[in-house]
Parts: sequence; structure tokens; C-alpha cells
Amino acid sequence: MKEETYEKSPRITVIEYGENFYEEFKIERPEELHHYKDKTNTVWINIEGLENEDALKEIALNFSLHPLTIEYIINRAQRPKLETFKDYIFIAAKMIYFDNKKLVVEHLSLLLGRGFLMSFQEKRRDLFEPVRKRLREKKGGLKGSDYLAYCLLDAVVDGYFEVLEKLGERIEFMEEELVRTPSRGLLNSIHKIKKQLILMRRAVWPLREVAGDFERLDSPLVKESTRVYLRDLYDHIVQVIETIESYREMISGMLDIYLSSINNRMNEIMKVLTIIGTIFLPLSFITGIYGMNFVFMPELYWKWGYFATLGVMLFIAILMLLYFKRKKWL
Amino acid sequence: MKEETYEKSPRITVIEYGENFYEEFKIERPEELHHYKDKTNTVWINIEGLENEDALKEIALNFSLHPLTIEYIINRAQRPKLETFKDYIFIAAKMIYFDNKKLVVEHLSLLLGRGFLMSFQEKRRDLFEPVRKRLREKKGGLKGSDYLAYCLLDAVVDGYFEVLEKLGERIEFMEEELVRTPSRGLLNSIHKIKKQLILMRRAVWPLREVAGDFERLDSPLVKESTRVYLRDLYDHIVQVIETIESYREMISGMLDIYLSSINNRMNEIMKVLTIIGTIFLPLSFITGIYGMNFVFMPELYWKWGYFATLGVMLFIAILMLLYFKRKKWL
Amino acid sequence: MKEETYEKSPRITVIEYGENFYEEFKIERPEELHHYKDKTNTVWINIEGLENEDALKEIALNFSLHPLTIEYIINRAQRPKLETFKDYIFIAAKMIYFDNKKLVVEHLSLLLGRGFLMSFQEKRRDLFEPVRKRLREKKGGLKGSDYLAYCLLDAVVDGYFEVLEKLGERIEFMEEELVRTPSRGLLNSIHKIKKQLILMRRAVWPLREVAGDFERLDSPLVKESTRVYLRDLYDHIVQVIETIESYREMISGMLDIYLSSINNRMNEIMKVLTIIGTIFLPLSFITGIYGMNFVFMPELYWKWGYFATLGVMLFIAILMLLYFKRKKWL
Amino acid sequence: MKEETYEKSPRITVIEYGENFYEEFKIERPEELHHYKDKTNTVWINIEGLENEDALKEIALNFSLHPLTIEYIINRAQRPKLETFKDYIFIAAKMIYFDNKKLVVEHLSLLLGRGFLMSFQEKRRDLFEPVRKRLREKKGGLKGSDYLAYCLLDAVVDGYFEVLEKLGERIEFMEEELVRTPSRGLLNSIHKIKKQLILMRRAVWPLREVAGDFERLDSPLVKESTRVYLRDLYDHIVQVIETIESYREMISGMLDIYLSSINNRMNEIMKVLTIIGTIFLPLSFITGIYGMNFVFMPELYWKWGYFATLGVMLFIAILMLLYFKRKKWL
Amino acid sequence: MKEETYEKSPRITVIEYGENFYEEFKIERPEELHHYKDKTNTVWINIEGLENEDALKEIALNFSLHPLTIEYIINRAQRPKLETFKDYIFIAAKMIYFDNKKLVVEHLSLLLGRGFLMSFQEKRRDLFEPVRKRLREKKGGLKGSDYLAYCLLDAVVDGYFEVLEKLGERIEFMEEELVRTPSRGLLNSIHKIKKQLILMRRAVWPLREVAGDFERLDSPLVKESTRVYLRDLYDHIVQVIETIESYREMISGMLDIYLSSINNRMNEIMKVLTIIGTIFLPLSFITGIYGMNFVFMPELYWKWGYFATLGVMLFIAILMLLYFKRKKWL
Repeated sequence: MKEETYEKSPRITVIEYGENFYEEFKIERPEELHHYKDKTNTVWINIEGLENEDALKEIALNFSLHPLTIEYIINRAQRPKLETFKDYIFIAAKMIYFDNKKLVVEHLSLLLGRGFLMSFQEKRRDLFEPVRKRLREKKGGLKGSDYLAYCLLDAVVDGYFEVLEKLGERIEFMEEELVRTPSRGLLNSIHKIKKQLILMRRAVWPLREVAGDFERLDSPLVKESTRVYLRDLYDHIVQVIETIESYREMISGMLDIYLSSINNRMNEIMKVLTIIGTIFLPLSFITGIYGMNFVFMPELYWKWGYFATLGVMLFIAILMLLYFKRKKWL
Repeated sequence: MKEETYEKSPRITVIEYGENFYEEFKIERPEELHHYKDKTNTVWINIEGLENEDALKEIALNFSLHPLTIEYIINRAQRPKLETFKDYIFIAAKMIYFDNKKLVVEHLSLLLGRGFLMSFQEKRRDLFEPVRKRLREKKGGLKGSDYLAYCLLDAVVDGYFEVLEKLGERIEFMEEELVRTPSRGLLNSIHKIKKQLILMRRAVWPLREVAGDFERLDSPLVKESTRVYLRDLYDHIVQVIETIESYREMISGMLDIYLSSINNRMNEIMKVLTIIGTIFLPLSFITGIYGMNFVFMPELYWKWGYFATLGVMLFIAILMLLYFKRKKWL
Repeated sequence: MKEETYEKSPRITVIEYGENFYEEFKIERPEELHHYKDKTNTVWINIEGLENEDALKEIALNFSLHPLTIEYIINRAQRPKLETFKDYIFIAAKMIYFDNKKLVVEHLSLLLGRGFLMSFQEKRRDLFEPVRKRLREKKGGLKGSDYLAYCLLDAVVDGYFEVLEKLGERIEFMEEELVRTPSRGLLNSIHKIKKQLILMRRAVWPLREVAGDFERLDSPLVKESTRVYLRDLYDHIVQVIETIESYREMISGMLDIYLSSINNRMNEIMKVLTIIGTIFLPLSFITGIYGMNFVFMPELYWKWGYFATLGVMLFIAILMLLYFKRKKWL
Repeated sequence: MKEETYEKSPRITVIEYGENFYEEFKIERPEELHHYKDKTNTVWINIEGLENEDALKEIALNFSLHPLTIEYIINRAQRPKLETFKDYIFIAAKMIYFDNKKLVVEHLSLLLGRGFLMSFQEKRRDLFEPVRKRLREKKGGLKGSDYLAYCLLDAVVDGYFEVLEKLGERIEFMEEELVRTPSRGLLNSIHKIKKQLILMRRAVWPLREVAGDFERLDSPLVKESTRVYLRDLYDHIVQVIETIESYREMISGMLDIYLSSINNRMNEIMKVLTIIGTIFLPLSFITGIYGMNFVFMPELYWKWGYFATLGVMLFIAILMLLYFKRKKWL
Repeated sequence: MKEETYEKSPRITVIEYGENFYEEFKIERPEELHHYKDKTNTVWINIEGLENEDALKEIALNFSLHPLTIEYIINRAQRPKLETFKDYIFIAAKMIYFDNKKLVVEHLSLLLGRGFLMSFQEKRRDLFEPVRKRLREKKGGLKGSDYLAYCLLDAVVDGYFEVLEKLGERIEFMEEELVRTPSRGLLNSIHKIKKQLILMRRAVWPLREVAGDFERLDSPLVKESTRVYLRDLYDHIVQVIETIESYREMISGMLDIYLSSINNRMNEIMKVLTIIGTIFLPLSFITGIYGMNFVFMPELYWKWGYFATLGVMLFIAILMLLYFKRKKWL
């Protein structure tokens, strides 16, 4: 959890928009953010990269944030939460996506204040481009900072759905595989997906409460018209959770099948051995009898003794095969 | 989730009914719906097919629906929910039925307004004919649009019971099968039903909350006399859920039995091998002894040596069989 | 669910009782029930048999029942519920008993009105005789119709305890059996009891809520002095539920033991085979060596070769047995 | 549940105590109890033995108890509950202790009235001596009857802890045993402890609610200063419950280990058979070849044929052993 | 639980701090504590070692604590709780850390009064040094005794995270081990970690409620500004709980894999035996045939009989191998 590189400074983007107005800046030094306070338009400050804690602290000072807020932003292990401070609402959430087949859980913090929204992303990976595009296109069409916060969280939840779709495909693939060839590697894959679902669940469950609290929040920062959207967000999160739970149940069902099919194969293996043994042990015993060197063994001197013995053995073998046939082992 | 065919336009049916009044129309163009607003009679507008989003959006515009409403209607993955808007109540539910042995979950949206009810079905499959028949028969007997909404939801829940009945029959059949011949295919069938139950549960669970909210809703659109019916609806949904849970438990019990019976069969197989091995290995050993070519082996030259040996072997074999008898392996 | 025989008309019994008063009638035609409305004494109308729906509907008309009420009475799949209508309280419950080793779940409806109680039983089987006896004996000793409703429900719950006692005995019997001889039939018995418990749980769980609602009901039909009895009823139901849950846990523990003991037996079987194989395969190999027909084999011509070989083989056999002894396989 | 002996009359002890006052009597006939009503001091009436129902009913009459109360006292299957009557509070609880390795669950009833406390124990076994000792020692140090009720319940809960300690020791012992020798008997012990935990849980769970209700009770019979002690009692009960749950989890973990170790042993057994079989079957085959009686077999006449064959067989055996070594089977 | 050494007296440290003020004392006799009551600065009294109960009782007398309080402090089995007394708030919590690979759960009590905080630790092990350091550094920077209580609890929770990190590492290590070599020892390790998680969960779950109660407490002893920190504490505890639950799920998944891999190995072992048996039993049978001593066996006298037989046997062996190849056993 401590692999920070202190050189990297955060990348800051500012978007100011309002009635028929849209502007986008890149900012080099945190101090410049000062200009964007108390605008009549809505200002969205997006900060990417949490490595440089000093820069983040300076931003915090500029906006006179509560000491806990900055801790929440920096601490990547912070679980999703919503906390109301005097001037702003703090929201922590988790962005989840696949990066080279590895499930990445990224920390995201939102600071919703009067007329501005600050977002802190852990990495420089852009999930919010669709939101930006909509802002650019219908200037003024998007309402205040609370609606913007909804949009960002909605983009996050859309990311969950994408991850779930991929997981769902893999589960389906594994299920078919399971029917054909239940290999050891498959078991490991199942276990891996199970772990990814545990990871995901931990990130999504608390967000449900966050969305619920956000919707019911009695604050001037949340407009009445936004609430129906937040309820929709809440619904989507519940849907994500339900999907996760369904997947977990399917996974657990697959484990049952896997175990059964191992045992089934054992049955098959044992059947082969038993059939072979049951046929050839008695036959070998007969050959053993006539391989004995007793001086007085009448059969040995009988002319058809050999062929009669062969016949008897054939008869026994056929009998055995019929027995196995009836037992449905063949 | 994106296999839409944009050509298909929705099929729209309008039913107007009231005190001693009943009329049924087919409508070609969405614009015509305009005529059916603000009638004194109750108007039921049924729209089948969600492929043509533009047509649906036009209808939405005509009735000045909230942008989220139309999203709820179009999004087939939308989970069951009830949302109160200014002029109307929106309800999403899932219709479930078997189509060629495949369990289909279809999205249904209801829009309950003053004097009208709109229903949006995903496919052109008619579950609501019984309701229509009742409307036709006892003109005016059916009360306002809220009661109509109840009727439609009740028809949906009746569909659940039909599906459950089929699943129940299959489970019963599989249970008998399990006692007779526990095959690999049976295991796959169990897994398949388990998945169908998971699917169904996801569709039904949230509907329970919807029905509860509907009943408690403090809105002029829901009459006092309708509430007792909504409570009944709620009860039926709970019954569906309980049945699903019972089935799930039965399924899980069947898995236990399946696993046990595989192990039981293994025991049987091993018993056969062990009996054969335990009888013939010692006997073969004896024949081996007298098959040795030592020059000086007194027994070989004894006249009754051969028959004595045969006798001893028979005795050993009988002893073994008695032993297995006592162990209850035979 | 649709095996009704329309000929059978319900059997109606009316009991009127009050201060020093007790009378019992059999009634042939539903119309006569009319006479028993609005008596100053308490009237208990017991109706057995739900096959003839028309007769039931006529009774419903006579007492001007809500259309849903009659549906609740007729629908045998109706889950336990309490519903308050304008003039009466409706209660649905399930009677459970063993009929020829088969667990029967029977539908019961109670209608508690001012001064009267109607009970609708599915079958002509008398569980309520003890209540009737108490009524006859202490005339007037029993209070109003609400207390009578309690008595009937209490009789129903007493029936649950009887069923549980029988199930408990079976479980105990099966546990002892399990330790002695874990057979395949035992597994089926376990599964059967598990299913009976699932059935029972479904019937009893909702009744708990019904009893709770009944006790808290704010209605002139429920006297204050009856509430302590209803709380007692509630307690008994909870006790039934707890017993069911305990049984379920025991059952699940028995399954674990069953599986373990199957595996244990497999171990035993394999041990026998392994011991036999491990002793006789090497010995047979030795006899094989001296059964070879090489012209030049010095041991063959040694006088004591045969006996020395026998000695060596005995020695090996003893060695093997000691090894198995130390491994605790013998 | 019906093994009562009607001869045995209950043993009644009365303790009267107050400011600097302490007296202890034995009472023969229930009628004498009359003298101890409405004392200014606190009176504790302890009744042991529930067999003689008539005597108990007479006591009930003397103190004019509600008919349900006496039923609660007599019914040993009564689950823990708290019920407020007009003049007194009724509390039912379960005393649990080991009697000759058998877990006994004993029914206890408390009747808390103004200035008196009655306790009904099922058997003549004294758990309350410590309480009596404290009463004797610090006369008047103990406050009113509500505090006395707390003391008795606390003694009951202390009894739970003792039982848990013993169970804990057994579990620990079994865990060590499991690592050394997983026998069939161990499985039965695990199952037995599991059942005892189920029994105990059923007795303790409802008591938690009782203690919670007692503490929150709005009654003049419960003094404000006693509540903090009742909260402590509640806490102890929760601790008992948590311990039970932990034990259950450990037990379930032990079952997993047991099953795994059975399978592990099977592996070991099979390994031995496989090693022996894999070495000696090929070797026996070779001896078989040279045991054939073909007239023309050149090797047989070669002088070193015999020793060469022995060498080859040795070589094969060593090869096999090396193979098993690499597979870590040896 | 009773390994106390009565000689050891507790080690008492007093820290007084306020606006620009910081002092630290060691105190020998409990009586001296008297001087530190009712200071205007905040006083933190840290007491280490619970063995000497008399000394603790004297402290309790000095500060006129409720008798239950001192019981809570001394009883190491006391579960985490918060109790409000007249003049102070009592909080019990558990410190958890690894001591030589053994998980230690240590009892901690906090007494939060007006202007002072008392902490009672079970052992002389210093977890609170970081808090003390912060006090020394920013004199007066730390607010009142409630904030100090938060700091101590936060240090306790930080200790939980350390323990979890170690457990997480072990689980990860074991997972890799599981894939490589699933040994018996691994199973024991899994069981051990499972038990540690049970232990930890029991200590942490109730603390969650304590933190929640602390935050919502309506008491002049808890300042408004501290509440946001207590909410943060609550959040951290929830995070600990969630991590524990995730670990438990992973552990349970590992057990599944372990069981599967045992069965997989059994399959492998059986395969080897079956292949060997299936190849050599028929071959040995053939050699047996030609080892028989019948006088009239034509093949024996054929010149190429021996080589033909060898060829047939080779052919059969190759056939078998091909069969196993197709079955994917090789």
C-alpha cells in the first residue's frame, strides 16, 4: 500500500460551464485553483494522481478543507463513504476496471461544494470522457454541481457493469468447459473469479449506502430535481450487487459440479480396472491350475483338454461381460 | 443487450372503458395517442415492442414524460421499481414464461396516470388477454386505472406461478430419477434449474418491494378500495418467493444425494474388485507354488496331490465368500 | 391443485353459547345460516369441505363478505395471513398432521366478526373436538368470539407440536441407525424428512406474523384480556419454528456423517484389497521366478530349494502383516 | 415430557431480608405462604420441584396469579419469556448444567412482585446457594426484589459459562485428537457436541430478548439503579451466544478436516496398492514369459539367461521406485 | 483465565497537557492520583497491568466509580461495550497483536470523564506511544479528553489493520502453496487461520456498535467537533470487519480447492494402477496359457510360436496404450 512516487505531481483540469458557456483549462500549479472559487458558473476541478501528497495538501489548504477530508482523499484503502462537512459534501467511491486481465480497484473522491465539484482520481486513466463530452455538447444543458456529481458516479457504476459483463462471459465459458473437460486449471480459474467477485463486492456494497444517503441528504447542495437521478443511481448499484450475488451462486454451483465430475471420473477409472481384473484374475487362475507340475493330473493327458480349457475360459469371459452389461458398467 | 432492430415499430392498442362502455382500437402512428388524453373514461394504452426507440420517445414527448421514465421503459435490464413522478406513477416489472423450454424474462413498464394506464411490453406476446376479456365482459365492473394496474401485475404474478408449477414438476421428476439412475446428465439438469431459479429470484425479489410501496403509496392515483387488492398481490409475490426458496433448498438437497450416490456406486465397484482380488490372488499363488520347477518337491509326486490342492483351493474360496457374507459385502 | 369434486356440499355445524347456554346444530342448507346473525350469544359456524364453491359463495353473500375473502377461503394455496375488513377480521392458517405416514397440510380460514366466528376447513377431519368439549363443559366460561378464535388457532399449533414430536422420534431413530448401518435407504429417509420440514416451515413461518399482528390489532373485535393469550400463541409458534430449525440442523449434521461413513467404508474396502494385493503379488512373483523354464537355474536342483523358497515366502508374508499392524490397518 | 410423579410435593424455602434483617424458613404446606404477603422487607420464596401440579396451583390461587402464569410455570417446554401481568412480572429462563456428562436443561420461573420474588425450579438442585450466601452476609446490602431477580438470572448465566468452559475443553481435546487419529468415534463426538450446542442455543437465544425487555421495562417494579445491572446481564448473555456461535464454527471446521483426512488416508492406502501393483505386475509378466512351454525359445538354453532375466527385473524395479520417488509417493 | 500474580502492582503514568503545556509523570502509589482530579488541563492516566485487583479497587474508590465499572475493568473476558455512568463514560475494547506468531487479545478499558481520561491495559506493552508522541509535539494541538479517547481507540484499530495485513500475507502464501503442493500441514494452517479470524471477529464486531454509540452519544463529555472523527473510527472498524469476512470467504474457498485436489490426486494414483493393471493382466494371462502343461497343445511345437506370441502381446500393449491416450489418461 506504500508504493508512492513523490516526484509525480497531480494533473489538474478545470472545466467551467454554465448557461451557454463552456471552457476547459489545464492547470500547472495548485495555487492557480484559487481563481476558480466562488464563480457563478459551475466549476469542475478534476485532479488525477494521488502520489504527491504535498500538492494535494496545498489544494486542501486553498479550499480550507477539514483535515479528515484530505486524509480520506489520500488513503486509497478508504472505503466508500459520504460525509457532510460545513461547506461541502465529501464522497468516496471505487472505480473498477480490467487492466490487462487484472481487476483494478481505484480510489475516487468527490468534493461537492456550492457551485463547484472537485474529483480526485488515483490514476491518470480517463473514465470521465463521456461526461466531458456531454458537457461540451449541450452547454448549460447540464444542471449544477450536484447533477455533475451524479454523472460522475453514474460513469463509475457504468464501469461496474462493463466489468460484470466480462466476468459473466468468462463464467459462461467456464461452465461450458466444465461440461466438457473438468481440469485442474479450471478449478483455479473458478477460485480466481470468486476472489475478484469478493473484491468487487467489498467496493460496491458500501457505495449503495452512500447513494442512499446522498439521495436523502437534507442539504441545500442537493437540488430536489436531482434526487430522482440519485434514486436511479441507487437502483443501478443494487442491480450490480444482485448480479455479483448471482455470479457467486453460479460459481458455487460450478464447484459442486466440478467435485461431482472428479468423483465421476474416478468411478470410470475404477470401472475399467475392475472389469479387467474381474475378467483376467479368474482366467489366470485357470491357466495357473494347468501350469502346475503334478505328475498325476488326468486332464493334461486328454487330447482335447487344451481346447476345452480355452473354451471354458471364453465362456467365463463372456459371462463376466454380460454381467457388466447388465450392471450398466459397459 | 444491444440486438435491436430499428425497423420494427411498436404495436399500439387502446382500450377505453367506463360505466357501460367499452371500445378497443388499434393505432398506427404514435401521434394519434394524443386523442386519448384527459378522457372521463379510463383509457388503457398497451404498447408492444421496444425496438423502435424513436417511436417510444415520441410517445414520451406527447405525454410529457420525465427523461428518466423513457430510459426506464427502454432499458430491458432495468430492475423492477416504482417511482412517483409529478403526474404519474411508474412501475417496472418482469414477465417470466417458458418459450420452447427456455426461461424468458421480459421487461414490462406501467405508467399509471389520472384516468389512463400505459403498458409497455418488450415482445409481442399476449399475457394480458384474460384482463381484456374481463374488461369486455363486465363493462364498468372494473374500477379505475389503479385497479387495472393491479390486474396487469396480478396477471404477471399468475405467470410466475405457471412457471413455478413447471419447475416443480421437473424437480419432482428429477428426484425420482435420482433414486433410480444418478447420471451425469441429471447433474447438469439440476444445475440448469438452479440457474433458472437464480434468474427468477432476481426478477421477483424487487417486485415484492414494489408491491409493498404501491400499497402504502400516499397518492390520489391509488384509491383506498384498491389497497386490499394490492395487499393480496403482495402476498402472492411473497408466496412466489417462498416457493423459489423451497425449490432451491430441494435442489441443494438433491446435490447432496447425488454426491452420496456417486460415492455409493464407487463403493459397489470397489467391492466387486476387492472380492475378486481377495479370492483369486491367494488361489493363483497356490497354483504358482506347484508350478515351480524345483526338482525336489514331494507333493508333486503324490498321487492325490492335484486333487488335494484343488480341494484346498475350493475350501479357501468358500472361506472367503463366507467372510464377505458376514461383512455384508455380498 | 384442481382436483375438486363439485357434488360434495360442505358440512355445516353451528354452536351457540353464552352465559349458562350451549346449543349445537347441524345445518343442511347454507341459507339457514341467516338465522344466526346478530345474536347476543357467541355463535361459532364451522364449515368443513371446500369442494362446493357455489355453496361457499352463497354463504359469503349471506354475510356480505368482500369478494377477496371468499377467494382466500377457496384458494388452498393461500398462505397464512390476517386481513382486516370493515366488519370482520379474516385469518388464514394451515393445519398440519400425518395421514398414513404422509404429511398433510390443510387450509383453514377463520372469520372473526362481532359475536360470531366462522371457520372453514378443507377436509372433514376434526381437530377442534377438544375446543368443543371445553365449550360444552364450562358453559359461558369461554369468553367471546376473539377468545374462541385463539382457542382454534391454539388447537392448530398443538397439532404442529404433535407432528414435530413424531418427526423428532424419527430423527432420533435415524441417528441411531446411522451409527449402525448407513444404508442408501437411510439417505432417502433423511431427504424425505428434510422435505417435510421445508413444507412445514413454509406453513408455520407466516403464521408467526399473523399471530403477532392479531395481538397488536387495534380493533374493537379483540378484547384487551385476550391479548395475553395471543402473545402465548405467538410464543408457541416461535417455539415450533425453533424446533423446525433445530431439526434442520440435525438433519444437515446427519448428512455430513452419512457422507463420512460412506468414505470410511470405502477406506475399509480398499484396505482389504491392498492388504491382499500387497501380500500375494510379491509372493506370486517369487513362484513365477521358479516357474521359469531356464535350463540353467542352480536353485532348482538344490535339494532344499523348494522348502527354502517356501520359508522365504512365509517370512515375507509375516513381514507384510507386521507392517500393516504398525500402520493400524489390521 | 410426561414423566411426572404426583407424590412428590415441592420443597418451599422462604427468605425474608431487609435493613439489618435476615431470616430463612422451610415451609411444609403451601397455605403457610399466605403469611409472607405484603411484608415491608423483601421476601424470596423458592419452590423446587414441579411434579405436584395441585400444590403449585394452590400457591397460584393464594397469590391470585393469572391462569396463564401457572401454565408457564408447569410447562417445562416453555421457552424463555418475560410477560407483564397486572401485579407482577413473570420471567421464564433455562438453567443448563452437566449431570453425569449429560447436558440438562432445566426450567426456571421467576415471579417478581412488589416486595417479593418467587422462583420455581424444576429439580431439587441448588444453583442459587451463592446468592443466598451473599444475602446472609451483607444483610440489607442487597436491594429490593428486582435486584434479587437480577442476581438469580446472573447465577443462571454463570452456569452457562461453566458449561461452555467444559465444552470448550472438549472441543480443544478433540481438535488435537483429530490431528493425530481421526477415528469414527471422533465423528460421533463432534456430532454430539454439535447437538448440545444446538440445544443450548435454543435455551439462550430467547433469554437475550428477555433480558433486553427486562432492562427497558417501564414498570414501578424495576428501579432505575437496577437497570445498569440488567444491561450487564444482557451483555453476558450476548457473550454466551457469541461463544456458542464460535464453537459451532470450530465444529464445522473440524468436520471439514475430518472429511479431508479420511480422503487423505484413502490416498495413502491406494498409493501402497499402486506401488506394489506397478512393481510386481510387470515383473510377474516377465516370469510368465519364461514360464511358457514353447519348444523353441532360444533364451531358455542360454547359460546366463536366468541371471540376465533376474538383472533385468531388478533394473525395472529400481526404475519404478525412482519414478515413485520423483512423484513424491515414497 | 485465572493466572494472576498478585505481587505485580500496576504501572501508572500520568500525562497532563493543555494550551502550550505538557507534563509526564510516573506514579508509584494509587493514592497520589488524587492530585490529578479536577484540573483545568486534560489529564490522561494510563494504568498497565490488571493483576493487582486491590490497587485497582483503590483507584476506583478514589474516583468514586460504580461497582460495575471496576468489574468491567478487571474481567478480561468482558466484551467491548460502552456504558454511560453519571460522571463518566466507560468503554471496553480489545487490543489485538501477534506475539511470537500467537494472536493475543488484550483487554483495554477507557474511562472518559470531565477533563480526564483513564486507560487500563491488561499488559505492559505499549501500543500508545504514537499518541503520546503527538501529544508531546503539538502541545495543546490535541483537544479535550474525548478526542484523546478517539486517538487511543484509533491506535487500537490501527493495530487490527497490522494483524490483518500479516494474516493476508499468510493467506496469499498458502494459496500459492495450495496450487503447488496440497499437504496435510497446509490444511492445519488453514484451520488455524480460520480460528484466528473467528477470535478476531468476536473482538471487533461489538466494537463497531461501541463506536456507533459513542458517536451518537448525547453527552456533554463528547464535543460536536469530535463526532466526525468518531464516524471515521466507525468506518475503520467496518473496514476491519469487511476484511475479516473476505478472508473467511477466501479460506473457505481454499478448503474447497484442497478437497478437490486431494480427490484429483486420488484420480491420478488410480490411473497409474489401472493402466498398469489393464496392460499386464491380459498379457500375464497369455503367458499363463502357454505355461499350461497340456500334452496336446499344437502351438507349442510350432517353430515361430514363441515369437508370434511375443508379437501378439506387444500388439495388445500398444492397443491399450492407444486406448488410454484417447481417453486422455496419458
